[in-house]
Amino acid sequence: MSYIKIPSHLVPSDPQGSDLLALEREKATFNVKELTLALYGSKELEKDNRILKILENDPVFDKSNLYFMGRTELFENALRKDKRLVQLIKEHKWNMEEIQAAVSFIDLPGPYGLHRGMFIPTIFGQGTEEQKKKFLIPALKYEIIGCYAQTELGHGSNVQGLETTATYIPETDEFEINSPYLTASKWWIGGLGRTANHAIVMAQLKSNGKDYGPHPFIIQIRDLETHQPLPGITVGDIGPKFGYNATDNGFMLFDHVRIPRFNMLSKFSQIKKGTGEYISPPNDKLSYGTMVFIRAMIVTSVRTSLARAATIAIRYSAVRRQFVDKDQPKKSKDGRIVETSVLDYTMQQYRLFPVIAQAYACFYTAKAMIDLYMKYLKQSSSGDFSLLADLHASSSGLKSLTTTMAVDSIEECRRACGGHGYSNFGGFLLKTFREVVSNKNPEIYASQSKKNPTLTYILDYINNPNQVCNATTSLDFKNNELQLRAFGHRAAYLIANAVDQIDNQNKSWNSMLIEVNRISRAHCQYLLVKNFITAIQEQPQPITDEKLRILHSSPALKKVMESVCNLFVLHTMEKEIGEFFECRFITDSEAKLLRTQVYDLLQEIRPNAVSLVDAFNIPEFVLQSALGRYDGKVYETMIDWASKEPLNGITLDVNPNSEVLFRNKNKAKL
Amino acid sequence: MSYIKIPSHLVPSDPQGSDLLALEREKATFNVKELTLALYGSKELEKDNRILKILENDPVFDKSNLYFMGRTELFENALRKDKRLVQLIKEHKWNMEEIQAAVSFIDLPGPYGLHRGMFIPTIFGQGTEEQKKKFLIPALKYEIIGCYAQTELGHGSNVQGLETTATYIPETDEFEINSPYLTASKWWIGGLGRTANHAIVMAQLKSNGKDYGPHPFIIQIRDLETHQPLPGITVGDIGPKFGYNATDNGFMLFDHVRIPRFNMLSKFSQIKKGTGEYISPPNDKLSYGTMVFIRAMIVTSVRTSLARAATIAIRYSAVRRQFVDKDQPKKSKDGRIVETSVLDYTMQQYRLFPVIAQAYACFYTAKAMIDLYMKYLKQSSSGDFSLLADLHASSSGLKSLTTTMAVDSIEECRRACGGHGYSNFGGFLLKTFREVVSNKNPEIYASQSKKNPTLTYILDYINNPNQVCNATTSLDFKNNELQLRAFGHRAAYLIANAVDQIDNQNKSWNSMLIEVNRISRAHCQYLLVKNFITAIQEQPQPITDEKLRILHSSPALKKVMESVCNLFVLHTMEKEIGEFFECRFITDSEAKLLRTQVYDLLQEIRPNAVSLVDAFNIPEFVLQSALGRYDGKVYETMIDWASKEPLNGITLDVNPNSEVLFRNKNKAKL
Repeated sequence: MSYIKIPSHLVPSDPQGSDLLALEREKATFNVKELTLALYGSKELEKDNRILKILENDPVFDKSNLYFMGRTELFENALRKDKRLVQLIKEHKWNMEEIQAAVSFIDLPGPYGLHRGMFIPTIFGQGTEEQKKKFLIPALKYEIIGCYAQTELGHGSNVQGLETTATYIPETDEFEINSPYLTASKWWIGGLGRTANHAIVMAQLKSNGKDYGPHPFIIQIRDLETHQPLPGITVGDIGPKFGYNATDNGFMLFDHVRIPRFNMLSKFSQIKKGTGEYISPPNDKLSYGTMVFIRAMIVTSVRTSLARAATIAIRYSAVRRQFVDKDQPKKSKDGRIVETSVLDYTMQQYRLFPVIAQAYACFYTAKAMIDLYMKYLKQSSSGDFSLLADLHASSSGLKSLTTTMAVDSIEECRRACGGHGYSNFGGFLLKTFREVVSNKNPEIYASQSKKNPTLTYILDYINNPNQVCNATTSLDFKNNELQLRAFGHRAAYLIANAVDQIDNQNKSWNSMLIEVNRISRAHCQYLLVKNFITAIQEQPQPITDEKLRILHSSPALKKVMESVCNLFVLHTMEKEIGEFFECRFITDSEAKLLRTQVYDLLQEIRPNAVSLVDAFNIPEFVLQSALGRYDGKVYETMIDWASKEPLNGITLDVNPNSEVLFRNKNKAKL
Repeated sequence: MSYIKIPSHLVPSDPQGSDLLALEREKATFNVKELTLALYGSKELEKDNRILKILENDPVFDKSNLYFMGRTELFENALRKDKRLVQLIKEHKWNMEEIQAAVSFIDLPGPYGLHRGMFIPTIFGQGTEEQKKKFLIPALKYEIIGCYAQTELGHGSNVQGLETTATYIPETDEFEINSPYLTASKWWIGGLGRTANHAIVMAQLKSNGKDYGPHPFIIQIRDLETHQPLPGITVGDIGPKFGYNATDNGFMLFDHVRIPRFNMLSKFSQIKKGTGEYISPPNDKLSYGTMVFIRAMIVTSVRTSLARAATIAIRYSAVRRQFVDKDQPKKSKDGRIVETSVLDYTMQQYRLFPVIAQAYACFYTAKAMIDLYMKYLKQSSSGDFSLLADLHASSSGLKSLTTTMAVDSIEECRRACGGHGYSNFGGFLLKTFREVVSNKNPEIYASQSKKNPTLTYILDYINNPNQVCNATTSLDFKNNELQLRAFGHRAAYLIANAVDQIDNQNKSWNSMLIEVNRISRAHCQYLLVKNFITAIQEQPQPITDEKLRILHSSPALKKVMESVCNLFVLHTMEKEIGEFFECRFITDSEAKLLRTQVYDLLQEIRPNAVSLVDAFNIPEFVLQSALGRYDGKVYETMIDWASKEPLNGITLDVNPNSEVLFRNKNKAKL
């Protein structure tokens, strides 16, 4: 598919990328395969390899032209892949985890994504047995394709403010679905634009003149034969976006559309036939679970994004050379002075190594969050919801902190146009703090504090609000106990400070939002630090978890992970140093020691940089990066891909006075 | 061009966006038109309006389908616009500034951009009179189209390391241009991919077996009739990029291509006919000027990007409402409680108002840099290059700081794959510091320090290295003298510290790069702060500059700009608080006062937020934003644009077992 012939005798100037990466890999102090195993576990790796092989060998999943596709072509490509995926799922009888692995390898969220990810799980979780029979069974067979329509043009985060209405009509035992305003239009709904023929629609339930808030309804929206919208329904794609252009995010307006009463998802609440009486759910916390789980899963996907970015940047920086370091010039095998790999520049290390460290930190916090969620599931099934508040607060905060950390950062203004997703969070921590302070007998918390890390640091702070760092050498900063103390003290200080402003200075909630944001950040950084340290610290024997067992049975692995953990903790501390000063934990001379230790850690990690990203084990099929290739053939790939750019098949007429733009509309190919 | 009919009776729910923006505009404490005039001056505004009117009324410059175009379509569109622009330039006899205005309104950097921006100016600046006759005249008539080919696949920032060679062949009085390696391929060259038929090529000059470093050569690369590459030349487009996809950035390899000796640009250095003797340039600083000017212009383009982003986000935040503020619920005209504009949330203000302040800060630093450049031009023409080092250092640092500030920030890894463009910088500051310290009689610097702000703060630091903030109330932070002292002290402290590490602790240059980066940041923030403060402080009478005269003749304008300046200074200080702690300038209780003042400034600015962005005067033709419309019709525009998405003309076959993807390949339109 090349349009241009690249002279085949040319090679990159020496040293070759493949040789440079080989040298890097020789320097590693640990076994890469062992670390990969300690990250994913043997079962997950076996599954991933099996599924990857199937996808790589199927021409439908070829990715070689993706970068050249416009939106329509990309969407068509994604639909083809989604169809093939459905066939493979059936053929290989893949379970949820296997499907998830395939989706992440295909890496092109497409038209059926929300059918699988939201439509089916919502009916499963909130439908009655009769509703499952009617909708879930055909959905699982893809006889009907659904989506989940919650957000509207005028409402994102504030679900209570949705404008679409569902009014019960007792005469016909139906609901009337209506969009009273333009702003009521459903908006951003994945799979709705061109694909779905059914939708779960969140609408304000009204019966007998009363409002009962947003409830879910299943609505058929397109004809199963013609695929045209049903009467009263205006539906379409919302247009191009920054990313996710292979998915048809859609909008939808209802003009007094009638649906049977049966179509309100009724596992938790319902409307009685004829009377229109509302029967409320037994426990309104029940519906929270899924949301919390999805947020916890976000840390997992952040870990993947960070690992991917780090892999590309580290490998490329090892291959890319620029300038000669005059203090320490590098020499090639034949003794010539050559340019220095940019990975050897401290500034580059300072930028990139923390990204490696953040990716590893997310591995351990993702694990901790999923463990916590499993514990909650078990407890909640016997009516104990005590973990919910913590889970809700931590997962919201971590979603925000880790995604921000991962994009490092979406342009401030574009982000500011989004929601205020985590403003609930500070409230929970402030409440916990007040409870502990007002209780005359703090010992009752001491026993609980073993389970609840938030309580631990709040108690520590109350017992010793004037705690200080007390470091005398830069090595002191490698002490895990000091590290935990630092992050706990800072978070507790910010909470205490905010409580004081609200209780004693009568500050309004709105005026406290910036403080609440700082608290959320501090608390979530504490969690990331704590989860990482916990994973690499001495474990109670015997170690039942396979991944931890592998990690702790190899001194080399443990050592490199200690370096990575230290870098994550201390680099984060350095970035947030202002707050550690403000809570008087650290002095200016200690801050210098801290910085020295960060620089030392960069040197400590340098020999392992490439191997640490190799351990993430991201297949070329997923990376699709000329810069981040495992074999280091950066430049060869760049020019090979360029030769395939479709523009290269077009010859221009560059005379400004000629109306002809392209001389050959039909592109010439080699 | 709509594919979907949107019900015409629907409107957004109350209050309407247009009413909300009208209310915002009523609250302004100053005259918007006056501020616009104080920002741009009457001449520039007149010119902009005149040119905008011409472009808006020409159908070729229509932008309504840009968001839906794939790369090939976009490139074709840009070529059409570039051709029309050439015709308009001729028709209206536009000068450089008028052309620049048109280009920025068209806002789609296209195929001829580098012909105008680099090819022509380089021949003009570095060609002999004969070379100008041969190449400049046809270039100005667009009979030949050129580009500027410097960077290569293997070399970006390190120009000295370029691999393309130009070897003088005395026998034929020619140069032989060659690409010995794949990495020697020219890369990223704007306009080269499909458009240019000539290129200025930077290549390593070799003569009589000696190397003379990179020099510029003019090379014809495509046939003027057929537009096919000439023999020995492999050339093409490098493929899609994040942005600039309407430009054909290209690559090029030479296989022993011969060109006449005449084609080496020879104003400054040349090769003698036959002997191959090299005649070196009289002063190697001469070629620096343009680069410095281009960097200074970058601050101007950053100011525009920031202003655009702020305009969109502020207007949208005034229209967008979400949640009811329970402490202070808003009411509509008819007394109903309505949701709060997100612009009223302190967290949103904390995110967005600093962006307004940064945009204004860049206005004044762009002006100061261009003034400094003009002064340098005047001095250098009489052989005085004393300003060059400062201009070079400041423009490099500001390029880095302000672009980073503007994107706030490009993802760390992607950025890290780029160059190390500003590592020269710290060197200059360290040298100045050493000179001042080692000189026994610092008074000789006192007189110079009035002209050189760097000297001012270094002298202050040496005289008083233990300077402190000494604030007792939050109002003290509004004191301009304190603000300048703070930023100067911090920059000088970092420089002193780095000098100490290099001189007394024998640190290598590479190990200091992170410190150098901190110094660059601190120094450039000092410049931004100083230039803003200087512009709004008491001026010597009479004020000759029109913009400053307008600003200072209206107390209302001056007052609002003081708030904006204070926010810029103090928000920057808060973000960098760790360094102000480290140099012992500020204490933890003073930091709290500082934060209080930042919050107070948000309230002070709130009523003027919309008018402050209105004053940027960015035409709808440029904004092209549904969210940032002047009239507040956000939701109406969103859905109108969505209805035009080409995917909406396509009907799918969603059955996963059917091989049909799109049922109608020819899209149906309304």
